[in-house]
Formats: sequence, structure tokens, C-alpha cells
Amino acid sequence: MAVCWKIVSLVVLASFFCSSIGQNNNDNVDVTSAINTTVRPTVSTTPAAEKPVACPTEPEKHDEEQQASLHIFFLLIILMFSIFMTHILIKFKFHYLPESVAVVVIGAMIGLVMNKTGKNFEDLEQFQPQTFFIVLLPPIIFESGYSLHKGNFFQNLGSILVFAVIGTAISAVVVGGGMYGLGQVGLVYQFTAIECFAFGSLISAVDPVATLAIFHALDVNPTLNMLVFGESVLNDAVSIVMTRTILSLTTQESGGAASVFSAIWSFIAMFTASAAIGVIFALASAFCLKHVNLRSTPALEFSMLLIFTYMPYGLAEACKLSGIMSVLFCGIVMSHYTHFNLSPVCQVNVQQAFRSIAFMAETCVFAYLGMAIFSFKHTFHAPLIIWIIFLCFVGRALNIFPLSALANLFRQVTIDRKMQCIMWFSGLRGAIAFALALTLDFSEEKRSVLVSTTLVIVLFTILFLGSSTLPLVKFLNANTDSLDDKFTMSKTEDQREAVDAEHFEENIPSISMRGFSQFDIKYLIPFFRRKFTPAEMLAGRHEMQALTEKWYTGLTGHSEMGSLEEHQDLTAPDPVHDETSL
Amino acid sequence: MAVCWKIVSLVVLASFFCSSIGQNNNDNVDVTSAINTTVRPTVSTTPAAEKPVACPTEPEKHDEEQQASLHIFFLLIILMFSIFMTHILIKFKFHYLPESVAVVVIGAMIGLVMNKTGKNFEDLEQFQPQTFFIVLLPPIIFESGYSLHKGNFFQNLGSILVFAVIGTAISAVVVGGGMYGLGQVGLVYQFTAIECFAFGSLISAVDPVATLAIFHALDVNPTLNMLVFGESVLNDAVSIVMTRTILSLTTQESGGAASVFSAIWSFIAMFTASAAIGVIFALASAFCLKHVNLRSTPALEFSMLLIFTYMPYGLAEACKLSGIMSVLFCGIVMSHYTHFNLSPVCQVNVQQAFRSIAFMAETCVFAYLGMAIFSFKHTFHAPLIIWIIFLCFVGRALNIFPLSALANLFRQVTIDRKMQCIMWFSGLRGAIAFALALTLDFSEEKRSVLVSTTLVIVLFTILFLGSSTLPLVKFLNANTDSLDDKFTMSKTEDQREAVDAEHFEENIPSISMRGFSQFDIKYLIPFFRRKFTPAEMLAGRHEMQALTEKWYTGLTGHSEMGSLEEHQDLTAPDPVHDETSL
Repeated sequence: MAVCWKIVSLVVLASFFCSSIGQNNNDNVDVTSAINTTVRPTVSTTPAAEKPVACPTEPEKHDEEQQASLHIFFLLIILMFSIFMTHILIKFKFHYLPESVAVVVIGAMIGLVMNKTGKNFEDLEQFQPQTFFIVLLPPIIFESGYSLHKGNFFQNLGSILVFAVIGTAISAVVVGGGMYGLGQVGLVYQFTAIECFAFGSLISAVDPVATLAIFHALDVNPTLNMLVFGESVLNDAVSIVMTRTILSLTTQESGGAASVFSAIWSFIAMFTASAAIGVIFALASAFCLKHVNLRSTPALEFSMLLIFTYMPYGLAEACKLSGIMSVLFCGIVMSHYTHFNLSPVCQVNVQQAFRSIAFMAETCVFAYLGMAIFSFKHTFHAPLIIWIIFLCFVGRALNIFPLSALANLFRQVTIDRKMQCIMWFSGLRGAIAFALALTLDFSEEKRSVLVSTTLVIVLFTILFLGSSTLPLVKFLNANTDSLDDKFTMSKTEDQREAVDAEHFEENIPSISMRGFSQFDIKYLIPFFRRKFTPAEMLAGRHEMQALTEKWYTGLTGHSEMGSLEEHQDLTAPDPVHDETSL
Repeated sequence: MAVCWKIVSLVVLASFFCSSIGQNNNDNVDVTSAINTTVRPTVSTTPAAEKPVACPTEPEKHDEEQQASLHIFFLLIILMFSIFMTHILIKFKFHYLPESVAVVVIGAMIGLVMNKTGKNFEDLEQFQPQTFFIVLLPPIIFESGYSLHKGNFFQNLGSILVFAVIGTAISAVVVGGGMYGLGQVGLVYQFTAIECFAFGSLISAVDPVATLAIFHALDVNPTLNMLVFGESVLNDAVSIVMTRTILSLTTQESGGAASVFSAIWSFIAMFTASAAIGVIFALASAFCLKHVNLRSTPALEFSMLLIFTYMPYGLAEACKLSGIMSVLFCGIVMSHYTHFNLSPVCQVNVQQAFRSIAFMAETCVFAYLGMAIFSFKHTFHAPLIIWIIFLCFVGRALNIFPLSALANLFRQVTIDRKMQCIMWFSGLRGAIAFALALTLDFSEEKRSVLVSTTLVIVLFTILFLGSSTLPLVKFLNANTDSLDDKFTMSKTEDQREAVDAEHFEENIPSISMRGFSQFDIKYLIPFFRRKFTPAEMLAGRHEMQALTEKWYTGLTGHSEMGSLEEHQDLTAPDPVHDETSL
């Protein structure tokens, strides 16, 4: 503990030291400092006589570069704090506080400090929708797809689709309609019908990032976990289509029924196309890594994999489809085929690297949400906020309870009342809703009201619902069995085990699944997975041993395993061992 | 081979398929397509009656997001092509063509195709200086520092500094002075003295990215490799200071001698501060990872490491220091201390992940350089280009030959005539010079002339000098010994070996180095490196074994090692083995 703070203070000290040096360097050439605020030799040398004042756009551009560096540096410090905090949460087994909640609080504190000190960090504090959608979201979703329990997911796909498609639509109608009605009555700020339904559809979608962060570790009931997570991922396509439909309703003034059918058709096309993009790229990656032997050059192998993971997202977004869905399906299919064509080193790398990247992306998202509390000029309308929260609960109730009853008609394992309560309670909203609210182009005031409302709802669901999910689960399970030790709200802690567990196939009960499974084993797996020769397997094993040996040698300075062999009869002498110790 | 093309054509087909679907989805709502060109529910719903035409700025913003996705997608396709090509170069042992040259050619071809088809990909083709400096450069330099042969580097530090500091200054004066003189005589396009020297200083700096890409694999003579690479990295600080000094000379009109002293002082301060930032962050990371036990949560460990690698770059650039130098020193020190505090999984990860990221960044840089040939509106002045190339050769000759003689006075192992020739010949310019040329804010025409000239010189040195380095080396070494088999121009091929070799300490001959080495062993290493307990080492070993086992189990479906044991008496039964197979 004390060590952490020492390090942090060291870093802060170092940064002050350095910034003062940077300042000094500047002062040396004080007259030209207006021109010299360029990180690099950005020679603004229209000779002094001709044009003594630098062109106004150029210095800005370079200032931007320097600002960006500073921006990244502060973001990294925030990330570092968050890592320390996550570590402390895990170490002291403080399981009731989800990591995401803690990070939001850190972000809020930093935002408050920045706000109070009056530093000009507007750029830094701004939550950039584009950065969020292009940089932060894809790795989080891909990782969740890659480490998804496929058996559970596909078994529950029917129910998930019911909740994601029909449920989200119900919720959007309830929130949008209620908001419009209340506005007409004069109880809340008044919006047009279109604005209400657009907002309703963006606020109704449950957020995958928040859900993952809070629910991932709650693996007492995998079905529950999968239902909530699945809904949060698949409702992206619904959300896009719904908004388009609402827009087309206004401008085209076409008939209601025709619009609904067109929307359904559009949804099916988008859903299929998005998933297809993901699946095609994943299969292409499996095929490619099966037949092109990149295993001997791990840098190429890993780069190729990274490229294949991002391509479907880029393509789907460029085609106005759901990037989230396509990267999810890509992750699922890659973990089923491509994963087994990798060298052992690359397998380990991919999992660890993606987990780390996803962790950092998630942390950034929550830190930004926290900082947004103090960085935006908010226009809070208390009645609106309270009513919308109420409407969200009502909408979600009308989503979960009737649709659970519907789904139970077709399910072998029914969704019981307790699970329904937890699902109703766990409708977490998150960064996607907030980013979408930022991109609304209503009038300035309306936009500001909606952004503030969204932020409050997002933070309310994350902080309040997120923190109280574990107590609720415990309360509901109090009578049945005590699961105290198994519960944890830390997503990061049990990562290793999650990877281990997830790549073994399950016994698959449903009939259609068994049919696909047989087809898979008979045709797809032989086609897309590589048959390693015994020699290649041996080589892979040797490689891992050599790497372990290198680690050991680095620590001890010698490559003999004397000390270990005394403890345990672990390693027989092998040829690689002698080779690497040269 | 055939497989590669099949895959590529598959991907291209898929992308066309998808883009047509995307198109269709659009057509469904054709009237509102102007508003609907939004990736997400960007509800531009000021009701139709009020403002039927969407606000001009907002759709642009969303178009930007979609453009960015498309941009990334195409970039990934280019990267994929480059990986295939690198793989083919390695597989068919076509060692004479450096990978970077091949990638530049690919980039040029793609640029040409884009240009001819007249597609509106201006955004895509543009080489963005900010992206280059903030995203692409840091991982390349960090990776080079992390896998640097520290013994060789510090042994030659004196000579490297002579070449980097004095040599670059000489070269800049020769090129700048020559350019000014020729302009005055009327032989070439006329620039002011300041413009000439500014351009001279940016074109004189040898480029680390190009040097790494071409020289890294040329490890016949590590000293030569180190001298060229070291110069290319350390001249960044010189370049920044020189430009500042030139600027201050114009505007302040201060005395020459005072300016020179101020420049020297400024250089020393910048050099020390940049290196100090890197070293401090690296030591902080070692200290942190020694005392905070993140080894049990590998995602946190790896994230923490990533954060520490980028922080010095961000801070140094934000303080207007040399980010390149600080990230280099950070890499060097981290590989000496922090590396040994990592869990074995994280050690493997860090190396592979950084190599992959650096590989991709390098590939992007060279592909962009290739594409720049056809994407910019160039203004070529043939006499200027030819004269500058000539001046560059002269300047580099006046750098290398006299300074080698100077350095040889103090060196135990002298730089012989052959090495001097290769060093003279290998003054590769690269993306840094080009990015700097783009940020020059001269008048439009002058800037255009200089950008085009820089691009030609960069491509000339990479394509011509880069390709002919290996033949030259062979020619010069023809009499002494034939090293045909050891030579390779592929940087990617021998990565594994490079990592293995570089983390073992060498016998250190020079006295000052030996002094530091003793101090290091006695005080620094015990302070910054962790002493792993035997139990921890065993745990690390088991972890790696478990991961290997998981890979094996995934491939075969069972965890027994039967088939392998027949081949080789490799693995004794161990407890972990049984555990993971559950």
C-alpha cells in the first residue's frame, strides 16, 4: 500500500521536475515562444521581416500535438491509479464494490479537482464519441466474444433475442411514449414525439460494457449472466434500426404498418449481415492461419490475428451495420476455430493481450464517465430525470416479466422469479447511451438537457444498481444456499480461470445444437482447424519450455534446475534445455 | 501461396458483398439518406417542418466516423497484404529485398490504383504527422530499446554521441549552406537562409525507423549496427535544439557565440532531461512491479507495463523534449530491471506484443510513405532534388570520415575503412523527416517543393540505399569471409533468436562500464529486481506448463501425453498436469 503511494508521488514529482525543465527550455527563447510552442522543428520561418506573427492555424496544430501528448499522459496516470485500486480491491477482498464503480468515482474525483483548480483541460475531460466507438468499444466486445461460454450463449439464443429485440422495443416505446405524454401534460420538459422516441430508444438499450464489468464475475448462475449479457450485445442492431425507422416515419409520412414491416425486414437484414461479416472474417482468419504457416514468426502471427479481429468492426461500421454484433460474432467464431491454429505462445499472448487491452479500454470508459460529471455544462431538470428513471424501470419490467413468461413456454430450464427480478434490476445503461446522446443534433438546449439526463441515468444505474446487485443476489439466494465465498464483484481477479474454463466444450442438451455440433465435428472443425503433426506439437511444447527456461535463467543467472528438482521431481532432462542454456 | 490469394479474394468479395448490403439498407430510406448517413442513431430530428435540411456540421462529424472506420478497414487490408508479403519473403529466402522496401512498393501500387480509379480516398492516403508521432513512432522506438543489446550500446556511446551530435550538425550546415549557396547562384529554387538551414537540419537526421528496418538483421558486425542505430535515435534531440537555435538567431539577432553556447547548454539540458524521464519511469516501473504483486492478475500486470512504456513519451513530448530519446532509455532500463520482475507469462507477452505492435507500426509507416508518392500534389524541382541528394552524400561524408578518425583515437576497437564506407552509405532518411517537412509552415509553394523533395530523398535512400546495403556489405567483405548464409535483410525472421540473445549480459571490456556494472550488481539490481522465492518460481513454471497443457489438450481433445511420450521421454508426471486436465 505505502509503496503504491510512494511510486505515485515519485511519478508526480518527476513530472513536475520535467515540466519545469521544459519550461526553462522555453524561456531560453522567450521572444519566439509563440512560434516555438512546437514539439518538433516546425520551422515557421517566413522571415521575420515579412510576417512576424506566425500563421494562426499552424501553431494551433502543433499545440494540438503537444496537448494530445499531455492528454495521453494524464489519461495514463488515471489508468495507473485505477489499476492500483483494482489491485487493492482484489487484495483486500473488498468484493462488494465493483471495479467499474470505483473507477467512476476516481474519474469524478479527478474531474472535480481539475474543475476546482481551473486548469484548462477541457479537451482532456471531454468524452469523445468517435474515440469511444472506434478505439475503446471494439476490443471490449471482441474480448467478451472470445472468452464467451459458447454453449451457454447459443443454448439461450432464442430467449436472448426475445429480450433484445422485442424487449428493447417495448422499453423504448414505454420510455418514449411516457416522456411525450408527461411533456404534453406539462410535468416535464417538453420534447417532440420524434425526440422522445429517439431518446427512448437510446436509453432503453442495456449497455454491454457496464453489464460485462458488473456481471462477468457473477457466475453463480451462468444462464442469468448470459441472458443479461446477450441482450446487451444484441440490442445494438435493434437500436440502430429503431432510430432509422422513427426517422423515416417523420420524413416519409408513410403508413404505419408498412413502416413496421420495413423495419422488421431492415432489422433482419442488418442482424444477418452484421453477424455474417463477423463470421466470414473469423472463418477467413482460421483458414488463413491454418494454411499459411506463420507460427515460426510469432510477430506476424499475432499481427495477423489482431488485424482479423478489427477488420469486421471497421467494415460493419463503414457499411452502417452493427459493428458491435459483427465483432462479437467474430470473437465467438475465432475462439472456436482460429484459436486452435495458433502456436502456444500466440495463444497465450492473444488471451492476455486482449484481456489487458479490454481492461484498459473499460477503465478509460468508466473514468471518462466519472470525469463527465464535472466537465460538461449540465442542464439538469430534476422532474425529467426522476420520471425517466421511473419510466426506465417500468419499461424494463414490461420487457422482462411478460417476455420471461413467453420464453419459459419454450425453455427446458425456466427463468424463475428470482432471476427475473435480478434481470429487471440489472438494466445497466452505460457509455454507449452517453456517446449517442452526445451525437444528437437537436437544438443546443434540448441536447444539453438530454445529455445531462442520460449521464445521470447512466451513473445512477452503474453506481446504484451496479453496487446493489450483489446484495440483491445474496438476499434472494439467502434461503437456498450460502454462496458467500464464491461471490465476487471483481471482474479482473478470476481472469485466468475464466480462460481455462471457456475453451472446453460442454455437453449440449438441445437438439438443434446437437445437430450443429455433429456437423461441426464432422465438417467444419476438420476444415478450419489445423491438424498439428506430433513434431509440431513437440516443437510448441519445447518453445514454451524454452521460454520458461529463459525466465528462470534470467532470475537465477544459471539454467540448472537444481533448486527446483530438490523440491519436486518435475523436469526430466530434455534436449531443448541444453540448447537454450548455451 | 495460392492459399494467400484465395483468402485475399475471399475478403475482397466479402467486403463487396457487405458494402452492397449497406448500400441497400440505405436505399430503403432514400429520401432521408442525407441525414441517415450516420453510423448510429444520430437523430437529427429538428422536426421536418422547422428545419428540413440537416445542420451542415453534424452529418460531417458522423460521416467522419464512418470514414474513419473505412479508413481503418483499408489500412488493415494493406497491413494484411504486407504480412503475406513479408511471410513470402521469409519463406522463399528472398533476402536481398528488405521488407520495408517491399512495403513501400506495395503502398505505392495501392496509391497508384486509388489515384487511377479516382476514388475519393484523400483522407486515407494522407500521412498524418500527428498520428505518426503519437501512435506509430513510440512503440517502434520502445521495442528497439527493449531488445537493444545494452553492452554494445553503452560501449559505443561515446562514438555514437560524436556522430549524432557533431556529425548531424556538420551535415545540416553542409546541406543548408550548400542549398542556400546554390539558390543564390541560381542553380536551384531559391530559399532564405533560415529555410535552408531548417530544411538542412531535418533532412540531415538519419531515421531510426528506416535504420531499424534495414539494419536490424544485419548483425554481422554488431558495432556497426549499433553505431548507425544509435546515431539515428540520439540525433532527435540535436535536431530539435538546432531548429530552435536557428529560429532564435533570426528573431533575436543575438551574437553568434552566445547563441552557440546557449544551444549547447540547451542541448545538454534537453538530452539529460529526456533520458532522465525515460530512466525514472523505467525505474519506477521496476520498483512498482517488484513490490506490488500484480503477478497473480496478468491483465493488470501487462496493463501496468504498457502504461509505463508510454508515459515517458507522453510526458517528454508534452514538455517539448525528445520523446524518442526518453522512450528509448525507458525501454533500455526496463529490459534490464523491470523485465525480471514479471511473471513468465507476462515476459513472453511483452516481447511478442511489442514486436507485433512495432512491426505493424513500421509497416504502416512504410505503406504510407509509398502511398504518399501518388496522393500529394507534388512540385518536383529536379535540379533541387539532385543537388540535395548530392549535398546529403557530401554532408554525411564530412560527418562520418573525419569523426571516425576522431573517435578512433579513443576507441579500443577502431572503426575501420569498410565500416566507415557502410556508415556513409547507410544514411537512411525516413518518415520523421517527411512528417517534419509536412509541418513546415512556409508559403504554400515552398512547402510543397520541400515536401516533394523530402519524399524523393526519403524514398531514394530507403529504396536505393536500403536495397543496395546488403550487396555493398557483401562486396566489401568478399575477400575476408563468405557469410552468405548468415546474411538476411529480413528483420522479422530472426526475432525469436534476437530476444533470446539480448537478455544475457556480455563480458564488458571498458573500465567505466565495468565500474557501473559492479555498482549495478551490488546495489541497483538487488534494489530494483525482485528475488523470487523457490515457491514462486515453481508457480511460474507450473503456470507455463499448464498453458502448454491447455494448448495440447485443445488440439488433441485429451490431456494425456501418450503420443509425445512415445517419441521422446520428455515429461515426468506432475501434479499441475493432472489438475488442468480436470
